[in-house]
Amino acid sequence: MTELLTFPAASATLLEPRLPPPAPTSLSRPFVTLTFATSLDSSLSLAPGVRTRLSGPGSKAMTHYIRSRHAAILIGVSTLLADSPALNCRIAGAASQPRPVIVDPHLRWTPDPADKVLELARLGHGLAPFVLTGVDTHALPAARVGLLEQHGGKYISLAATSSAPPGGSGRMRFDWHVVFDVLFREGLSSIMVEGGGQIINSLLDPTFHALVDSIIVTIAPTWLGQGGVVVSPRRLQDSAGIPIPVARLSDVSWHPFGEDVVLCGKLHP
Amino acid sequence: MTELLTFPAASATLLEPRLPPPAPTSLSRPFVTLTFATSLDSSLSLAPGVRTRLSGPGSKAMTHYIRSRHAAILIGVSTLLADSPALNCRIAGAASQPRPVIVDPHLRWTPDPADKVLELARLGHGLAPFVLTGVDTHALPAARVGLLEQHGGKYISLAATSSAPPGGSGRMRFDWHVVFDVLFREGLSSIMVEGGGQIINSLLDPTFHALVDSIIVTIAPTWLGQGGVVVSPRRLQDSAGIPIPVARLSDVSWHPFGEDVVLCGKLHP
Repeated sequence: MTELLTFPAASATLLEPRLPPPAPTSLSRPFVTLTFATSLDSSLSLAPGVRTRLSGPGSKAMTHYIRSRHAAILIGVSTLLADSPALNCRIAGAASQPRPVIVDPHLRWTPDPADKVLELARLGHGLAPFVLTGVDTHALPAARVGLLEQHGGKYISLAATSSAPPGGSGRMRFDWHVVFDVLFREGLSSIMVEGGGQIINSLLDPTFHALVDSIIVTIAPTWLGQGGVVVSPRRLQDSAGIPIPVARLSDVSWHPFGEDVVLCGKLHP
Repeated sequence: MTELLTFPAASATLLEPRLPPPAPTSLSRPFVTLTFATSLDSSLSLAPGVRTRLSGPGSKAMTHYIRSRHAAILIGVSTLLADSPALNCRIAGAASQPRPVIVDPHLRWTPDPADKVLELARLGHGLAPFVLTGVDTHALPAARVGLLEQHGGKYISLAATSSAPPGGSGRMRFDWHVVFDVLFREGLSSIMVEGGGQIINSLLDPTFHALVDSIIVTIAPTWLGQGGVVVSPRRLQDSAGIPIPVARLSDVSWHPFGEDVVLCGKLHP
């Protein structure tokens, strides 16, 4: 049995202005919410691949409530491989399941029937993922493509770039404009971006601020220590080479939530 | 004229349980408050030596209010050299000035009459610093010692160690037990530790948690980006070599304060 979560109505009311409007918007791109939980030293986890419980139990229900309000939830492949997350919505009364979207330029994930996300799709407790890749999927083994499609997911090939602002060293990267454009054309009108570090840091780059509609960050009162997976975007400098802040939130609100605090804000006015 | 700051009584009431008790305590060491302001990515400043305005105007009044409630304020020499801070208390109605304490193992600071902290001491708007050093001060030029003493400050020689937990590479470090013990014997019954990064990170090491009575962190809703002066203590591992969280606050409260949030907590129960 799947454990169902409940999220207090009062908390839902506080979050409401930060979520995609229930009615279709006039946007020609998806409404994008960036949400994650960090320690005080801005770490998502103790080390790459180490699942780390940061926030309290209320935070889990909040995450699933936010999932229930988005058409899709997006993560990077590293998070998928590290955590094998369920990527479904377990909030009580959810009308539908969000579509998992995996950003996997080099196709590091090989779908396996035992993967949690596929298991839940078979059980009808979630949807199978759309996998965004820079690899030519026509060259993939038919069985691999078939497995994903039998579960209701699919591969989507995107043009990758190696010169995107987040600065990959020879590795393929996607332009977020292209990613969200493709997903919007797939009918996904709202995207909740959940991580991991590389995905979050690249979206915090000023190049992409206009694409992000809402930021929801949970901060836990703990220091994980040096060496964690850190949220901190690429440095920005002014024309004289002096470092300047990369992003400042506007429309800020802070909501104490158990031992944690939830920060809501916007990257653009 | 010195601009005087006011701190709202309601905010002072919220902070009260986090501050040294007005009456002398039964502690045989000083009451230690660790306080600082960071960005969301846990940076104190954009780069070493770059003064960075992080928090809103209310935060400045809070800092000075907290200063008014401590016998001493302690900073590392890097912060002194970078910022030439005033290190006095400009809250309206403050009964007395806190004693500035500079942690300067290698005596990198050469006092100059033009230094802000000495200028304010001459004007009667603050006290001259006590400088904690591992250098033998008997070998110092008499004029240097005299300048500090004429302003009411002094040098205090401490036994330094190069094997202290914060892990200096051949550089002298102090054991915080020794530092606070010496300051207590100087009659300083409460110490507000303000920074910088090295000082804060070393105090967050579990070796010293028992010495810290109160933590007050202001977080501003901004990401400074990679390369800043980061608060993140040295990594901790369990006996199997697995990284574990370095510190988790107890008795936590979060106080939204303008655009910022103020986090209060304790490092030990």
